[in-house]
Amino acid sequence: MTDLARRVAEAADLVTVALDELLPRADGPESRLTEAMRYAALGPGKRLRTYFALETGRMFGLPERSVLRSACALECIQAYSLIHDDLPCMDDDDMRRGRPTVHRAYDEATAVLAGDALQTAAFEILAHPDTHPDGATRAELVSRLARASGAQGMCGGQMIDILGVRDDLGGVARMQRLKTGALIACAFELPLVMARAKEAERHALLAFAHDLGLAYQIVDDLLDAEGDPEAMGKAAGKDAAKGKANFVTLLGVEAARERLGLLRKQTKDHLDPFGAQAEFLRASVDFVLERRH
Amino acid sequence: MTDLARRVAEAADLVTVALDELLPRADGPESRLTEAMRYAALGPGKRLRTYFALETGRMFGLPERSVLRSACALECIQAYSLIHDDLPCMDDDDMRRGRPTVHRAYDEATAVLAGDALQTAAFEILAHPDTHPDGATRAELVSRLARASGAQGMCGGQMIDILGVRDDLGGVARMQRLKTGALIACAFELPLVMARAKEAERHALLAFAHDLGLAYQIVDDLLDAEGDPEAMGKAAGKDAAKGKANFVTLLGVEAARERLGLLRKQTKDHLDPFGAQAEFLRASVDFVLERRH
Repeated sequence: MTDLARRVAEAADLVTVALDELLPRADGPESRLTEAMRYAALGPGKRLRTYFALETGRMFGLPERSVLRSACALECIQAYSLIHDDLPCMDDDDMRRGRPTVHRAYDEATAVLAGDALQTAAFEILAHPDTHPDGATRAELVSRLARASGAQGMCGGQMIDILGVRDDLGGVARMQRLKTGALIACAFELPLVMARAKEAERHALLAFAHDLGLAYQIVDDLLDAEGDPEAMGKAAGKDAAKGKANFVTLLGVEAARERLGLLRKQTKDHLDPFGAQAEFLRASVDFVLERRH
Repeated sequence: MTDLARRVAEAADLVTVALDELLPRADGPESRLTEAMRYAALGPGKRLRTYFALETGRMFGLPERSVLRSACALECIQAYSLIHDDLPCMDDDDMRRGRPTVHRAYDEATAVLAGDALQTAAFEILAHPDTHPDGATRAELVSRLARASGAQGMCGGQMIDILGVRDDLGGVARMQRLKTGALIACAFELPLVMARAKEAERHALLAFAHDLGLAYQIVDDLLDAEGDPEAMGKAAGKDAAKGKANFVTLLGVEAARERLGLLRKQTKDHLDPFGAQAEFLRASVDFVLERRH
């Protein structure tokens, strides 16, 4: 295991323990709801958003405990969006990360509610005084996460994805920016807000996040076209089967790989202002580009 | 039209105009999402939570503009919960307030997403500096709304409702407290937080909210048993048809009416400490108890 892989795995362990502590438990009949929330949020996952948030927090010398709470909020939003995206009326997926999706493990109504309550939990976690001593900063964290995940971010992107209205690269790129890019960028944005980072630092890191999110999606589309369903824990070839355009169906495998090669350098270049401090974020670009699931 | 009815209607107009301004518009393909959000949130509604919030704000001399933003957040949560409750996998309702439900007017996927994005909008509105100049107060508003609407509030109550696990009055009362009571109480709680009200005032108003929420639900159950579907804009007799226990199926119509009579006095008594200032909140008890839809 490389140093980087170890750090990513450590971040995943940290956020899982923190989420286990923060997510509600119930002993009444509504325990079915809190169990489904835990099934979704505490299950296996790459936790890359958490890794990015923790690494950014380290660069700015933030207390890990605070950044970890922001990461928990991001993972709650991520988990809620996956539960709802998997629903029969959306992508209709039975498996996610090698396990039955929430509506298969429980039922559709429980899945809708578990997603709803995980979204609520994200904002409750951010707004709590333990996340940051300054109230205006906490409110700002809530604003940023809401903007990234609402109608003008993730939900808007999912709407575009469902409608399938994208015939060209511009449309696919915009969909990606809203659906997944906004929340990846938020993993950098929340620590930036906590650190009151300078405008130049903020711009550099968000440009990095933007290109990294794009690269992440191209890898996703390559895996969908060529990946091993067993390694991925979910079905492959879904976009082509549904006639949905993505980077690979539009560019072809070769051109998509070429674009990834260019993006690899461009993404890392954004980190130049941070020098050696950004060593592990820089290495994470290769980690994202070379993943097999 | 009585003075009270006029005030309630004015509150409804105010919040509809404010929501129209605050809810996002989109001109890309995701405009289907923002249209569905607007269809749900700007349609007809009693807007009682808004009325309670505005009336409480007046009692404490709060700026109407600020309280109205809190009311908008409450209405976004209310609208999102109705969209999701109406889904085929939940209550499977085709009509709501005399119009097709969101999944009938649009489709299920759009309905899930519109609910999701309305929840996000609620927290985005509260966290914005226009809601309150003090950041810690804004974060506190987010916390209170999250607690009232998440797994330990509204979502938890809806889980209990779906499971139908309630054979006695205690179970029905607990379900009501979580599913609808928490958000009604929040209509008083948010202005109380903004006003930094004294503990005694807070206790009195929340006791009022608690009993009012209970009365509201008993009226709901009576209307479900005896109401006119045309006046209500939705089907009647749903609980009995589904074998779901509620206050009326358990107590019978006569005993439920009797309990309402006792509650009417008890609810108003909580307002004694506020004297004449609470005139319109006091009158709203009769308004709630005598509603026909």
